[in-house]
Amino acid sequence: MSYKILASTAAAALDKELMSTGGFSIFQLMELAGLSVAQAVYKCYPPETHPKVLVLAGPGNNGGDGLVAARHLKLFGYNPKVYYPKKSKGELFDGLQTQLKSFGVEFVGDGDEIRLEMQKTDQILDALFGFSFHPPIRAPFNEIVAIMSTTDKPVVSVDIPSGWDVDEGPTGEVENFLPEVLVSLTAPKPCAKLFKGRHFLGGRFVSDELAKKWDISIGKYEGVDQVVELERQT
Amino acid sequence: MSYKILASTAAAALDKELMSTGGFSIFQLMELAGLSVAQAVYKCYPPETHPKVLVLAGPGNNGGDGLVAARHLKLFGYNPKVYYPKKSKGELFDGLQTQLKSFGVEFVGDGDEIRLEMQKTDQILDALFGFSFHPPIRAPFNEIVAIMSTTDKPVVSVDIPSGWDVDEGPTGEVENFLPEVLVSLTAPKPCAKLFKGRHFLGGRFVSDELAKKWDISIGKYEGVDQVVELERQT
Repeated sequence: MSYKILASTAAAALDKELMSTGGFSIFQLMELAGLSVAQAVYKCYPPETHPKVLVLAGPGNNGGDGLVAARHLKLFGYNPKVYYPKKSKGELFDGLQTQLKSFGVEFVGDGDEIRLEMQKTDQILDALFGFSFHPPIRAPFNEIVAIMSTTDKPVVSVDIPSGWDVDEGPTGEVENFLPEVLVSLTAPKPCAKLFKGRHFLGGRFVSDELAKKWDISIGKYEGVDQVVELERQT
Repeated sequence: MSYKILASTAAAALDKELMSTGGFSIFQLMELAGLSVAQAVYKCYPPETHPKVLVLAGPGNNGGDGLVAARHLKLFGYNPKVYYPKKSKGELFDGLQTQLKSFGVEFVGDGDEIRLEMQKTDQILDALFGFSFHPPIRAPFNEIVAIMSTTDKPVVSVDIPSGWDVDEGPTGEVENFLPEVLVSLTAPKPCAKLFKGRHFLGGRFVSDELAKKWDISIGKYEGVDQVVELERQT
């Protein structure tokens, strides 16, 4: 399925519109976004073959999507662990962490701890940075992205591959970070055109009217699926 | 699959625990509950055969689950209409209504309007009252339940059939209200033992630890499904 892209400024404005005239709360949008990410992980690397998932959660909303996904992955039968070194404050993010702890999900510390887990895991869910990221990548995330650039574990990235320029894609220090799977949320961002792996669209909360207004083609979701696979770029 | 029941006082306490030590917000729980209801509707009466769904939303949280379900049903390809005569106040319920309006979902008025829609629809989603309901059924809902008791349209009830006594089931004025489908949320309530139709469990947000503490067997959900069908009572 072909698709239209959404520039980063438009993506931010669309998010804002969903939460103003659209009437959505961030709790709902993040829940549905994170659920769609977990479903994409399940389609690509099911718990029977890849039970250990290391969820890398960044300091913003992309990290929040990862925290939600981690909870659903636990419910789907995975054994997720979460790396969340720069925690956001507030009810939303406090709640997401409490939920994970009540599900017995383990949090991984910095340094040797995270380095070891990146070797031991079966797959990595990259929820470090989304479309609003601007370089450079600061510590400790620069080392994490460097490890993801050379690991032989499959990596699923949330919204954009972390560290990529939202328009230009993999440049500079992240030029070798090429994840296996990308889950674009709401609509693919410009850099998705440079992505060569399996590409999904998630975030099934956009009305036809809103899609028309923002000139994004809504993915043709099947049945009750919260993600739809898009065609590979060639 | 056999299951254990949850008394209404325990159900209220479990909800409270999910939102305190569990760290969940009502936005998240209602979103996941409503999504699971919409998935059960899809499994029983898909949009190809039953496109017109009339969602009857009551004044409390059961009604909120119905409003969430209505939005997902719209996204699943249905043409839902919503009857919501006694609106709850506050950010959560205001938002749910705004979302539906932004999706172009039509609200149905009282009197002849709702009577006509109950004839025209292909199926009914009964989200009037949940486990905390106490008789009697007040107007305008008494007439609505009376119509549901004699309609030939399939009815899917959320959590408990509306008007049923949570322990005793269909007694008094609702003794003939026997919906085709029941979607129990979190765990079946005692009256579910008297229900003879297709029975689903939804609300996939309970940890194994919490299920053990409250002595409820979590349904064996398949893959990424948000509902699981339970065995019929015989």
